[in-house]
Amino acid sequence: MIVTVRKDSDPALVKRELVARGLWVDVLEGGERTHLAIAPFSRAVAKEELLAIRGVESVSAPKSPHPRLDAMPRVIQVGGVEIGRRPVVLAGPCSIESEAEIHAIAERLAARGVRFLRGGAFKPRTSPYSFQGHGETALRWIREAADRFGMKVVTEAMGERESELVARFTDVLQIGSRNMHDYSLLKAVARLERPILLKRGMAATIEEWLAAAEYCLLHGASQVIFCERGIRSFDPSTRNVLDLGAVALLAKVMQLPVIVDPSHAAGRRDLIPPLARAAIAAGAAGLMLETHDDPGRALSDGPQALSQAELDSILRNLADTEAHHD
Amino acid sequence: MIVTVRKDSDPALVKRELVARGLWVDVLEGGERTHLAIAPFSRAVAKEELLAIRGVESVSAPKSPHPRLDAMPRVIQVGGVEIGRRPVVLAGPCSIESEAEIHAIAERLAARGVRFLRGGAFKPRTSPYSFQGHGETALRWIREAADRFGMKVVTEAMGERESELVARFTDVLQIGSRNMHDYSLLKAVARLERPILLKRGMAATIEEWLAAAEYCLLHGASQVIFCERGIRSFDPSTRNVLDLGAVALLAKVMQLPVIVDPSHAAGRRDLIPPLARAAIAAGAAGLMLETHDDPGRALSDGPQALSQAELDSILRNLADTEAHHD
Amino acid sequence: MIVTVRKDSDPALVKRELVARGLWVDVLEGGERTHLAIAPFSRAVAKEELLAIRGVESVSAPKSPHPRLDAMPRVIQVGGVEIGRRPVVLAGPCSIESEAEIHAIAERLAARGVRFLRGGAFKPRTSPYSFQGHGETALRWIREAADRFGMKVVTEAMGERESELVARFTDVLQIGSRNMHDYSLLKAVARLERPILLKRGMAATIEEWLAAAEYCLLHGASQVIFCERGIRSFDPSTRNVLDLGAVALLAKVMQLPVIVDPSHAAGRRDLIPPLARAAIAAGAAGLMLETHDDPGRALSDGPQALSQAELDSILRNLADTEAHHD
Amino acid sequence: MIVTVRKDSDPALVKRELVARGLWVDVLEGGERTHLAIAPFSRAVAKEELLAIRGVESVSAPKSPHPRLDAMPRVIQVGGVEIGRRPVVLAGPCSIESEAEIHAIAERLAARGVRFLRGGAFKPRTSPYSFQGHGETALRWIREAADRFGMKVVTEAMGERESELVARFTDVLQIGSRNMHDYSLLKAVARLERPILLKRGMAATIEEWLAAAEYCLLHGASQVIFCERGIRSFDPSTRNVLDLGAVALLAKVMQLPVIVDPSHAAGRRDLIPPLARAAIAAGAAGLMLETHDDPGRALSDGPQALSQAELDSILRNLADTEAHHD
Repeated sequence: MIVTVRKDSDPALVKRELVARGLWVDVLEGGERTHLAIAPFSRAVAKEELLAIRGVESVSAPKSPHPRLDAMPRVIQVGGVEIGRRPVVLAGPCSIESEAEIHAIAERLAARGVRFLRGGAFKPRTSPYSFQGHGETALRWIREAADRFGMKVVTEAMGERESELVARFTDVLQIGSRNMHDYSLLKAVARLERPILLKRGMAATIEEWLAAAEYCLLHGASQVIFCERGIRSFDPSTRNVLDLGAVALLAKVMQLPVIVDPSHAAGRRDLIPPLARAAIAAGAAGLMLETHDDPGRALSDGPQALSQAELDSILRNLADTEAHHD
Repeated sequence: MIVTVRKDSDPALVKRELVARGLWVDVLEGGERTHLAIAPFSRAVAKEELLAIRGVESVSAPKSPHPRLDAMPRVIQVGGVEIGRRPVVLAGPCSIESEAEIHAIAERLAARGVRFLRGGAFKPRTSPYSFQGHGETALRWIREAADRFGMKVVTEAMGERESELVARFTDVLQIGSRNMHDYSLLKAVARLERPILLKRGMAATIEEWLAAAEYCLLHGASQVIFCERGIRSFDPSTRNVLDLGAVALLAKVMQLPVIVDPSHAAGRRDLIPPLARAAIAAGAAGLMLETHDDPGRALSDGPQALSQAELDSILRNLADTEAHHD
Repeated sequence: MIVTVRKDSDPALVKRELVARGLWVDVLEGGERTHLAIAPFSRAVAKEELLAIRGVESVSAPKSPHPRLDAMPRVIQVGGVEIGRRPVVLAGPCSIESEAEIHAIAERLAARGVRFLRGGAFKPRTSPYSFQGHGETALRWIREAADRFGMKVVTEAMGERESELVARFTDVLQIGSRNMHDYSLLKAVARLERPILLKRGMAATIEEWLAAAEYCLLHGASQVIFCERGIRSFDPSTRNVLDLGAVALLAKVMQLPVIVDPSHAAGRRDLIPPLARAAIAAGAAGLMLETHDDPGRALSDGPQALSQAELDSILRNLADTEAHHD
Repeated sequence: MIVTVRKDSDPALVKRELVARGLWVDVLEGGERTHLAIAPFSRAVAKEELLAIRGVESVSAPKSPHPRLDAMPRVIQVGGVEIGRRPVVLAGPCSIESEAEIHAIAERLAARGVRFLRGGAFKPRTSPYSFQGHGETALRWIREAADRFGMKVVTEAMGERESELVARFTDVLQIGSRNMHDYSLLKAVARLERPILLKRGMAATIEEWLAAAEYCLLHGASQVIFCERGIRSFDPSTRNVLDLGAVALLAKVMQLPVIVDPSHAAGRRDLIPPLARAAIAAGAAGLMLETHDDPGRALSDGPQALSQAELDSILRNLADTEAHHD
C-alpha cells in the first residue's frame, strides 16, 4: 500500500500518524511528491482512516486478489451445524481402519458432544509403500457411523477422480496440506457443492492460502473453512511450527473461520493439549484432533494420536473455557 | 535415541509399544539385532519406561548437552519476585526515550500490578543510522523509575564492554535475539550475577537455545529465563512466526520458565492481544510487551507498541484468566 | 545410520575413523555397547567400508525407501535423445501463447542445437484470475512446432483428467513444483509411459522428492528426471533459493539426472546466466530456461523470461564449457 | 520502488515496459494516478532508464541504506594481495591445533599458490563443553607460519575484548556467521583498521548483511569482504543451503567481493568440490576451505575438512578454469 503525501505537507508528520496506527513505513523519494510505502506485515487499517489524515493526498493499493472470499459469509453452515461461532471439534482417527473402530469412536465422541467425525479413506503418504487408506469401503463405514450418532463427516479428497466419490459420503470435503496448491483438484472439488476444509500448504504464504480459497469460490464452492496445521521450518525438535499468528490474522482481522490441527503441527501427543488451548485463545473456530483407541496399532500417525482420556481432557478444558466466556 | 531389540523378540511388537507412547520410530536393520531409532520431535518418555517394555534390550542416547540447565531451579527469583509460578508481565517502551516518559510509564504499570519495567538503553538496530539508544543516561532513568515504583528493571546488554555498566543498573540482564549465538557476550554476562533473560535467536533451534543457556550457567550465572519472540520464516504477512510449540515444549515438558514477546513476533498491534492469550494458554511464564504513550513518536518499533488502553485490556484479560484458574 | 561398537573396543577410536570419512557422529550410551549415530547430512560412505573399520560390530540403517529409484538407469532416453550424459537445454516460453510464436521460438532454438522445446498449455497460477493457459489448442501448437524442427516436447500436466490428453502431445511429462506432493496425479501420470520431469516441491525435503519419484516408478513409469527450481526461504531479495547442494547430492553422489531451472529460482533475468553456469558446475544434467521474444507481452512470468540475445549467450557459454571439458 | 504513471498515460503500457526489463510489478490504484510497485526480487534497473519510459511521471525509492558500501572500492587490498579480481583461496584448518600442524599446512598451501592462511584461535561452538580454541597461543602460531611462507592470515574475532588481540596477529579480521548481527562487535572490529571478512548470518537477509557491512564502514573500517556459508533451511540432508543466488546478486549486480565457504554450507566433503566450482561460476571472488591432515583427529568440524589430495584437486580445477578464461 502506498500513501502519497501532499506537496505542501511534511512527510515526517504523516509518517508519525501512520506509525501511530501500527503501520511500518518506508519513505520513498524521487518525484514531486513523497510516497510512504506500508510494509505487508503492518496492522490492517481502513483506507478511509488513512485518507482522513492531514497531509495525505491519496492511498493506493492493489485490488483485493480474493473478492469472493471477502464477500463470503463468516459463519459456515454444515447441514445445520455452524462453524465460526462457538468452537467446534472435528475428531476421529487419522485413517479409518475398520467398521467397528469408527463406530466405537463415533459413539464415544458423540456422547461428549463432538459433532464432526473425521477420518481418512484416501491417505496422502510420503512413501508409496505406506498404507494408503481403505478407500470407498472406508467412506461407507464413516458415513454410517456418523449417521448413526448424528454426526457430520469430514474426509479428504486427494484426487480429482475420487473427489466425486468422496463427495457422495462426506459433509465437508477436506483438501490436504500437500494439495493446497493443486488447482485442478481445487476446481474439481469446488463443483461438488460441499463446504471445503482447506488445509494450509506446508510452506504456503497466507496470500497463497487465501488465493486457493478464491479458486474454490470462483469455481463453484460457496463455503471455505481454513485449517492451519503447522508450517515447515528448520527445527527438528517439533514436527512443524504451528503458526498462530496466521490464525489470529485470519480469525481476528479478517473474521474468517479457521480450524487448528495441533496434532500435525506438534507431531507429539504431549504438546497437543497446550497447543489446543493456545489455538482457541488465538481465535480458532475449532480444533481438528486425531484420536485412536490403540495408537500403537494405528496404521498411520500413531505417535500423534490422542488416547480417549487425553481427548476427553481437551474437550473438558474447552467446555470450561466456553463456560467461563459465557 | 536408539532402542535395541532383544535377539529373540519381535521388533514389530516393540515398535508398537513405542508408537503407543507417542514415539516416531524408524526401523534400522543390518546387524544381529534390530535397532529402533526415535525421531527427535517425538514425545518425551523416560528411559526407564522404555527399558520396561518387553523385548527392549537397551536404550542408548547422547548424554544431556546441558546438565546445568537440567539441574537449574524452575522458579526464578528476581529480588523477591518470582518468575515461573504465576504469569508475570514485563512491560515498557522499546527504547527509553526520556526521564519523564519512563517515570510516567512506570507509575502507570505499577498501578496495574506490573512488577517488571523493561526498556532499551542500548538498542540493536539493523541500520547503523537508526537511533541506537541513550546508553548510560537511560540506564539511570529506568533504575530510578523502577525504584520509585517498586519495580524490577529488565534491560539488554548488547556488548561485552557495556555489560558491566548495564549490570549496575538492572535486575535482569537481557540477551537479545541477535546476540543469542554470541558466546563471548554470554560468558561476559554470566559472570555478572544477575538472572539472564535469553531471547531465542531468530533462526536458533531449540537445542541451540538450550545450549546458549548452558553457556551462561557454566560461566557463572545461576538463573536463566527463556524468551520466545518469533522465528524467521517465509511469509511477509507477519513480521515473524511465534513458535508456541517451542514454548509448550520448554514450559510443559521441560518445566522451564519461558516468557513470550508477542510484540516482536507479530510486529503489529492488532495481533498482540490474541497472541498474548495464546502464549499464556501454551504455558508461558509471562509476557514481554512494548508500550508507548505516543507510538507515532517512538524512536524505535512504534508500529508494534501498545497504547495504554490496549495494554490495560491485555492486563485485565490476564487477571481474568488467572482468577478463573484459581 | 547406527554403528555399534564392539564391547572390547574404544568408541573414541571408531568415532575418529568415521569422522575421517566425513561422517558427523553422535555418541549414544546406555547399554552394554556404545552406539554411534551418523547425522543425515553426513557424506555417503558404503556400509562395507564402515564394517571394515576395526572395532565396528555392526552397521544398521533403514531399508532404502526408494528401491526402484535405486535401480533406475541413470541416463534417460527420450525418443533417442539422452538426458544425463552431456548437458541438455530445455527452452521455450513460460506459456504457449500463439501458434506463430511457438514455431518461431522452436525454429530459433533448433538452429542453436536445443533439442527440447518447453512451454505451458495448462498453467498453475497463484491467482484464479490469472491466465491459465490455452489448453489443448496449445498442446497441438507445441507438438507441431517441435515435430517441424526435430525437437522433443516437455510440458506440464496439472490434473489427473488432463494428463492423458497432455500425454498424447508430449515426449516428457512435467510435474510442477506445486504438484510434487500430489500423489493421485503422480500415480495417474506414471501410467502414461512417458519419462517424467519431476520438479521439486517448494519446501520438499530431498527424501520427499526421491519418494515422489518412487511413486512414479512404482505405479508404471520407468524414467524420472529431477528438476530443482529453488526452494522457499526468508529473503525477499530473490524469488527462491536455488539449492545447488541438493543438485550436487543427486547428481554427484546418487548419479541421478537433475535439470536446473534458474529462471524460477532467481525470478530475475540478470541472475540467470551466473546461476546457469553454477548449475552445470554443480553437476546438473541440463538447464530449463524460459525465453520470450517480447517479455513485456508475455502472459506469465515475463520478468524472468530471457530475450533471444540473453539465451544465445547462455547457450554459447555452455558450448564453450563443453568444448573445454572434451 | 514505486513508479508513478502520468495521468494521461495507459498504466498497462508502462507495466509492459517494466516487465520487459525484468521487473515484477503490482498495479496500485486509488488516487488520481496509478502507481506501479516493483517487487524487491526484481532485476536491478537504473532509475534513469525507468524515467525514460514513455508515460512514467516519477520513480521513487528509499534512499540507499548503505551509502558507504556503495562507495567502497570493489577490489580489496590485503597488504598487496588483491581480493575481487582473480579468484583467491583462503585455506587452513578449522581450529589451529598445534604449531607443527599449522606450519606444515602453510608450507603445503603456499607451495600450491594459496596466499591466505585461515584457522581459528577462538572458536564459536554450539556447546560450551566443546573445544573453544587455543586462543592467543594459536594466534602466534598462525602468524609465524604465514610469515614464514609469505601468506596472509585470516582469523576470527568472536568478542570485543579479544578483537584487539586478534588484530595484532591477523591481516583480515573475520566476523563469524553467529556474530553478524552483533553490532557491538562490528563497531569494535571496525576501529582496528583491518579488512573485515563478514560471514552472512545463518538466517540473515541480504539487506541485513549489507547493513552489517555498513556498520563496519561507518565505524572505521575501509574494506569489507563478504562470505556466504549457507543459510539455514528445512532439509536435514545437507547441513545448510548454499545461496548462490545471493552470491550472484552481490558479485554480478552489485560488483561486491564475495567469498564462498562450501565447507560449512555442505557439511560434507564429497559435495565441496562441485559446490566450489559452482561458487566460482556464480561469480565468487574466492573460496574459503577447511583442510586437515588427519580429519579424524581434528578438534572441530573434521567431517567437512578436506584431505590434502581433495584440496589439491580443487586447486587444480580452479587453475584450469582460470587458464581457460584467459
